[in-house]
Amino acid sequence: MASWLPIPSKSHFSLSNIPFGIISTAAEPTHRPAIAIGQHVLDLSAFAQNNGFSKLADFPADQLKVFSQTTLNDFAALGRPVHRATRAYLQDIFRQETPYPEILKDNESLRKQALTPIGDVQSHLPLSIGDYTDFFAGRNHAHTVGTLFRGAANALQPNYNHLPVAYHGRASSVVVSGTPLHRPWGQVLPNPQAKEPVFQPCARLDIELELGMFISKGNKLGAPVDVNNAEEHIFGYVLMNDWSARDIQQWDPWVVLADALEGFRGKGLENEVPPKKYLAEKREDPILDINLEVSITTAKGNKTKITEVSSQNLLWSWPQMIAHHSVSGCNLRTGDLLGSGTISGLEPGTQGSLLEQTMGGKQFVKLEGGEERKFIQDGDSITITGWSGTAEDGLVGFGECEGTIIAAVPRD
Amino acid sequence: MASWLPIPSKSHFSLSNIPFGIISTAAEPTHRPAIAIGQHVLDLSAFAQNNGFSKLADFPADQLKVFSQTTLNDFAALGRPVHRATRAYLQDIFRQETPYPEILKDNESLRKQALTPIGDVQSHLPLSIGDYTDFFAGRNHAHTVGTLFRGAANALQPNYNHLPVAYHGRASSVVVSGTPLHRPWGQVLPNPQAKEPVFQPCARLDIELELGMFISKGNKLGAPVDVNNAEEHIFGYVLMNDWSARDIQQWDPWVVLADALEGFRGKGLENEVPPKKYLAEKREDPILDINLEVSITTAKGNKTKITEVSSQNLLWSWPQMIAHHSVSGCNLRTGDLLGSGTISGLEPGTQGSLLEQTMGGKQFVKLEGGEERKFIQDGDSITITGWSGTAEDGLVGFGECEGTIIAAVPRD
Repeated sequence: MASWLPIPSKSHFSLSNIPFGIISTAAEPTHRPAIAIGQHVLDLSAFAQNNGFSKLADFPADQLKVFSQTTLNDFAALGRPVHRATRAYLQDIFRQETPYPEILKDNESLRKQALTPIGDVQSHLPLSIGDYTDFFAGRNHAHTVGTLFRGAANALQPNYNHLPVAYHGRASSVVVSGTPLHRPWGQVLPNPQAKEPVFQPCARLDIELELGMFISKGNKLGAPVDVNNAEEHIFGYVLMNDWSARDIQQWDPWVVLADALEGFRGKGLENEVPPKKYLAEKREDPILDINLEVSITTAKGNKTKITEVSSQNLLWSWPQMIAHHSVSGCNLRTGDLLGSGTISGLEPGTQGSLLEQTMGGKQFVKLEGGEERKFIQDGDSITITGWSGTAEDGLVGFGECEGTIIAAVPRD
Repeated sequence: MASWLPIPSKSHFSLSNIPFGIISTAAEPTHRPAIAIGQHVLDLSAFAQNNGFSKLADFPADQLKVFSQTTLNDFAALGRPVHRATRAYLQDIFRQETPYPEILKDNESLRKQALTPIGDVQSHLPLSIGDYTDFFAGRNHAHTVGTLFRGAANALQPNYNHLPVAYHGRASSVVVSGTPLHRPWGQVLPNPQAKEPVFQPCARLDIELELGMFISKGNKLGAPVDVNNAEEHIFGYVLMNDWSARDIQQWDPWVVLADALEGFRGKGLENEVPPKKYLAEKREDPILDINLEVSITTAKGNKTKITEVSSQNLLWSWPQMIAHHSVSGCNLRTGDLLGSGTISGLEPGTQGSLLEQTMGGKQFVKLEGGEERKFIQDGDSITITGWSGTAEDGLVGFGECEGTIIAAVPRD
């Protein structure tokens, strides 16, 4: 799919993608929706105000105001058929042989106003998050960490294969890629025999490679979502770094719509336990297939890729997580964020946390320039990236999620 | 403190109280702020629009719009000195010898417009909740339940006396008093030896008597709150029933301001472990002193008081919870809800959950009319109430938090 707008072949933001985000610029500090396309963003607020959507028949006419909001929540709440139609229309707008050249391709004034180099915009949290639930669907991670803590015989908790386990996290703790983070303080036991904890900066700061998913339409309290209809409740996906020992989630700012990833799926990990009826999916490729990578860049500037893994390393699918989350009657709301849990393979170089790569801090991970790590040091920067597809067909990628740890704030 | 408005001596909403809430009426369905006073509410939207606050010098003049919002978040965010001045001013307005009789006492038109019998209004969730954190500060509850699960020797987890333990809950699951709740479904092990869980309606539905607290001003990510300044971050309190096995929190709709409870405090439970510096409070009466009661009304109409307990049965104070919550750098936001955890004494009739009163389901709680319970049955209604002070000085109470369990929704 070629575009009249130059898009580098290795760009994560090909015409096959069309991810949504929230931007501002130096000239216009108001937060507003945008899509990323190649090395540009299209400001959807300016685009909508200048009749950009006038040829999009499937869009509810009184809802164009969603593109002048400061978050994507109102757009997400319109539901997946609207997201699908909007994405397809924007692909038409940028296509080489666009059916509507007068809208943007031949409209120099609107191109000047609404198309901005991506390096000139500031990205912000794309949705206002109601609740954040972090699942634990990466069974390899669960097994390796469980073995470290409880031994191989009890690696997985008894309920692990029966239902998608999760914990509730804090919505306030989610920050956008690029935000530097101070090393946290906390009470810890100085050694396993100690009776008295000490108050000190965290010594075992770790990362966790995850995918995040946003809810589009919610469900009412007491009205569970059917697992085979749960896809209709998905808005899109982000890459996420769950900084552990801090409970901070950091993500890339572009939400890849559910439809953009529809073609990249597989079976995922096999579950020997037959699912209960409310978790039984009809489709045979329920798990997304995304290439994921983690790199560490030290204060000295050495950059090392430490993880390469596929998102197929999940036991539970997003529809299963949604169905289980709501089965007790719990209501999900537009903007709720669900995390996959850490995604890991079982081999060295495929694990999404240092805890696994170092066998619980027992061995070093070797880095470029002769450096090595057991846990994250001050000045280390972590970059997560992920994509599906090929350069020929256009990559569907997330860009990068980056965060740097800076020293703990001094305290007495 | 006498009022020109008739206030029954046993009313929880005396002139000493002035709790804030969000109401609507049949004639005006827009949600708007109000205070409860005796058997009436004062509609603060109508009051503000008719110059009701014109004699309140300490109120930021450009902020009167907080009283026309659909939640109390904007009012809460103004901070405790503004809440204090507003409450004191409204007490002046309703005082027998009010210095401003022209505002309301002698203003029949505004009285008609803004004063409504409390039975004629609908109450709503008073704040939009960002995050909900449920602490576990009731040590008697923690000890009794820990003994049931792990035996007396390991009743408290090793960190229990060192820091206020908490878990993150769902903001979406908080509902207002009076909302009926379906019994939830879930996967459970049918017996301790079973290998296979079954999917069934919850058989051990319980209640948990708690206090809830709302954050007024938040803190920035990375900037912890000092324990001795944490009171400035408290907006007010509600009664809460943490329906367990369902993770639904239900509360009374009136928020009692922090200042209204300032005179009702004590030492709470004694902690043999000296607190870390960041948890060390200077004040010697850090724990609120509120009389709390729980009653069950069965489907047959028998009502039995099953719990009477003081909120002094907490180990950790709200300022300690705030200081610990933020010490790692975690940001709290206006509208965040913190729960105390279940408040229980150690004697029969003082415990805030059926789990404790029945020794883990081993013995019955006797009810009026010859009925008995181990856990909550369909049709049971739970009422929580709480108050401080005396009828002579004016009660500072919460009203009632009520919820009825109805049958599980049929599922295949």
